[in-house]
Amino acid sequence: MRTTVGWKAEGRPAALRREALERRELRPDDLAVRVDYCGVCHSDLRALDTRSAEGDPPLVPGHEFTGTVTGTGPEVTRFRAGDPVAVGNIVDSCGTCPMCRAGQENFCHSFPTLTYGGTDRQDGTTTLGGYAREYVVRERFAHALPAGLDPAAAAPLLCAGITVWEPLRALGVGPGSRVAVAGLGGLGHLAVKLAVALGAETSVISRTPDKAEDARRLGAHELLLSSDPEQMAAARDRFDVLVDTISAPHEIGPYLRLVATDGTLSHLGHLGPLTVEAMDLLVGRKKLSSAGSGGLPATTALLEFCAEHGITADIELLPSAQVNEALDRLRRNDVRYRFVLDMSDLDTPDAPDASA
Amino acid sequence: MRTTVGWKAEGRPAALRREALERRELRPDDLAVRVDYCGVCHSDLRALDTRSAEGDPPLVPGHEFTGTVTGTGPEVTRFRAGDPVAVGNIVDSCGTCPMCRAGQENFCHSFPTLTYGGTDRQDGTTTLGGYAREYVVRERFAHALPAGLDPAAAAPLLCAGITVWEPLRALGVGPGSRVAVAGLGGLGHLAVKLAVALGAETSVISRTPDKAEDARRLGAHELLLSSDPEQMAAARDRFDVLVDTISAPHEIGPYLRLVATDGTLSHLGHLGPLTVEAMDLLVGRKKLSSAGSGGLPATTALLEFCAEHGITADIELLPSAQVNEALDRLRRNDVRYRFVLDMSDLDTPDAPDASA
Repeated sequence: MRTTVGWKAEGRPAALRREALERRELRPDDLAVRVDYCGVCHSDLRALDTRSAEGDPPLVPGHEFTGTVTGTGPEVTRFRAGDPVAVGNIVDSCGTCPMCRAGQENFCHSFPTLTYGGTDRQDGTTTLGGYAREYVVRERFAHALPAGLDPAAAAPLLCAGITVWEPLRALGVGPGSRVAVAGLGGLGHLAVKLAVALGAETSVISRTPDKAEDARRLGAHELLLSSDPEQMAAARDRFDVLVDTISAPHEIGPYLRLVATDGTLSHLGHLGPLTVEAMDLLVGRKKLSSAGSGGLPATTALLEFCAEHGITADIELLPSAQVNEALDRLRRNDVRYRFVLDMSDLDTPDAPDASA
Repeated sequence: MRTTVGWKAEGRPAALRREALERRELRPDDLAVRVDYCGVCHSDLRALDTRSAEGDPPLVPGHEFTGTVTGTGPEVTRFRAGDPVAVGNIVDSCGTCPMCRAGQENFCHSFPTLTYGGTDRQDGTTTLGGYAREYVVRERFAHALPAGLDPAAAAPLLCAGITVWEPLRALGVGPGSRVAVAGLGGLGHLAVKLAVALGAETSVISRTPDKAEDARRLGAHELLLSSDPEQMAAARDRFDVLVDTISAPHEIGPYLRLVATDGTLSHLGHLGPLTVEAMDLLVGRKKLSSAGSGGLPATTALLEFCAEHGITADIELLPSAQVNEALDRLRRNDVRYRFVLDMSDLDTPDAPDASA
């Protein structure tokens, strides 16, 4: 086995501690990647906060990272040492089901292997994520990081970015589309940038006016206050696509009412059961959809689009030793708009342990 | 006031009794219509079964009927006495909101006036439906019944038909589409006929195999048994559009799994809250939609399409005096596929009272 260092939770409470980790020896189609930057995703928080008191395997979060190839298995053809790469939230899939054949590995019928907390398809071990200095990944699930994209600010494209990109593309957003983005956080701010770059007239919906300036800076046409009944009433039936990135549980009805006839509300912030009044869908033949992560071809297309349009996330870059502080602040939504951990501090053997 | 005869419920239990009814005198843009045939809709059952013990206004159901114009107000231009007409479940709307201006009077922002149980926009009275020998309706909300359509079998097009037609059209069903219809009842059998006529490869999903022959006769490609896990697994991700017409409460998840990537489940059978697992939408970016009734232009288009393709409902025609029997049988789903009441028996003064 290879060894590296990363940020790991065992048991509960689940503060992350710096520890030595094992990585598998390279298989023929594997890359060894030095992780340079890893984004901090709401899923990481959820994975930590839903750990049971005991019995859960150790957790190393992190599923949107960029880095540098440091080694390759003998069958690797697309990468060599020194190449900049990016890895998202899935690292394997069956490769043979209709979803995999269609390039939607994220919907693999036998479930894709998640970057952390997944089960390796060959050795059955639990995958450990990108809050670490090294990751070993099948070549097929690594993406070339296009030149010109800042590798720290590009890391969140691999989860937050692709999660909003797939529905925007699938719903045909382009010039002339009227798009609303509810919730201006990690997902939301990238949804605004991407929708604007796709040519859509884009509005932000927020509970408070304090993000109005940011919304305009990101390219949005306006900020609608969800707390203002007059503004909400005036926006009724207005949007072809409403991307709902609000991470807290909330009623969908008031947002569905803003969707135009035959339009779609794409619900991205939440993975549990959704309840909707049939009448809120019926009146205007509105559609409720969801999305999450993305397939390999769409991820490649996203990275190319972002390179062409100069799009990356707005990030706050922290040394990885501040990971627990970043998670606490994310829990309070105190971030504009994504934390990214700089993993280079893990090269210093006696780096302070922030969880102490 | 004008007087007529119809089938009315007062109080509860809500058996319908033959009684004299009042209709308004013709306004300048009104038609008087002799109701010849009126379909029996699940909504009629629901309206009867949800009546409170007292306090609810008298109810005359019936919102899909065909008949003959017998009189016209002075401003009527499209009809004259003797013309065959058809009326659906809405008889007025504001006419000025964006939905009305877009020809979606069924989604009128100030709520359309329903054919029964609605509130007349001019005099505030509660509308009484088509289980009667005469109805008075604004010209704008009456449709010319195309020649060649049997007026009895055409009556259900005005509610069941338009309710399935609008989503089929809005979802772009045509040659090459793969459509599934879950539930083969009043709505479902018309959804099959319309989808087939639109050129779609159409499947029926049913709990039991006893409707397999009917499904084929209606033009369906196959009958899938929802009770057979193997058949359901084999049909995973297969349908671009799944029209769910099942009237009883049921889980949506198993049906969503049959919808193709970026496809839509249109849920038509039920008006209460719907609960869906976000993961059932997320995996395959599937959409949940609903629809009900239709706008005036779509209803006109439906009637023309049906005349062109020879499509009407499969009906069981009963004298209106058997209305309570029809409702009881509908409650048990004992109908293939729509009851239609022949109102001509109301011309006989001493017709037997079936509710006695």
